[in-house]
Amino acid sequence: MTKGEQTRHRVVAEAAKLFNQRGYEGSSMSDIMQVTGLEKGGIYRHFSSKEELAAAAFDFAWNEAVQLRSHDVAGIKNSVDKLRKLIANFVERRSPIPGGCPLLNTAVDTDDGNPVLRKHAAKALHAWQARLIGIIQEGIERGEVNPETEPEKLANVVISCLEGALMIARLERKSDALLNAQAHLDMYLEAVVRL
Amino acid sequence: MTKGEQTRHRVVAEAAKLFNQRGYEGSSMSDIMQVTGLEKGGIYRHFSSKEELAAAAFDFAWNEAVQLRSHDVAGIKNSVDKLRKLIANFVERRSPIPGGCPLLNTAVDTDDGNPVLRKHAAKALHAWQARLIGIIQEGIERGEVNPETEPEKLANVVISCLEGALMIARLERKSDALLNAQAHLDMYLEAVVRL
Repeated sequence: MTKGEQTRHRVVAEAAKLFNQRGYEGSSMSDIMQVTGLEKGGIYRHFSSKEELAAAAFDFAWNEAVQLRSHDVAGIKNSVDKLRKLIANFVERRSPIPGGCPLLNTAVDTDDGNPVLRKHAAKALHAWQARLIGIIQEGIERGEVNPETEPEKLANVVISCLEGALMIARLERKSDALLNAQAHLDMYLEAVVRL
Repeated sequence: MTKGEQTRHRVVAEAAKLFNQRGYEGSSMSDIMQVTGLEKGGIYRHFSSKEELAAAAFDFAWNEAVQLRSHDVAGIKNSVDKLRKLIANFVERRSPIPGGCPLLNTAVDTDDGNPVLRKHAAKALHAWQARLIGIIQEGIERGEVNPETEPEKLANVVISCLEGALMIARLERKSDALLNAQAHLDMYLEAVVRL
């Protein structure tokens, strides 16, 4: 990386922590200057607007989350076991970027405005849905998943349960709701989805 | 209501729309002055701080949401039917206060700060959990609900599925995820919970 690229990367990584905890409106340019140690001009050399920086910060935070949630998944052969591992990772692994799930935060933050950032969140959601749908479809083709399973529906139920439970867990500051969601989804995957 | 009470009520109702769409940080005092048509002094006559106003606005928005979701529930005798109606109301009925679920918005907005508002959100969540737990427990006592059901777990699963699905539906601007959550919960209630 050139020195400019290094600076850009560092600004994105620091801004990601700020935006993920305080939201778009709660993170001012002076907050961003403080956490990055750069003057306004130094930040605008790399990003044309706060919205562009926020979008890059979201992509960075989301990429970290996806990597965490993918931990040890690639080596798993069975599709249902893969889904269970993705769920377990969501429940057990906390991102180094504080503030909870970047997708949930950014979706709630931007659903009534901020179209650039909203587009990045929608793309992230779509990629997550597509990944789960792909695993379920493969499972049906391989005879591991009940062919009556509707991949889009199951993907949405998994994401809904996990994201809603994370909201409860963060508000209650205890992980009960996440463990309840995991137990429910695991039970469903074993009783109804696994062939 | 006295004239002062009427003004207070109007400020709360207008501020609720603003806060529920833009969040706490995204709603400035000048925005609040604009939507209420009051000077800063007029607002501070009724609320000691923006945080106190935001808390009153949250309580107002939450009360509206609870009333909507309770529509036609009281007349239903069977506990499982009651749960299904609460779920259907969540999916089908939209609050007159735009911006989505006040609980989801405020939970995500305040999980890293803003302790006064956070407390109001936590209290709202707790009341919702307690209501569902009460219905499930009554169902067990009456022999309508499988006695192996764990009321706290089921209450969290219902809330998680619905709130997570609302996040997806609002980001996608289509109701598929909410309908998927409803179908999943209805199936679970019929296959496992109903006696």
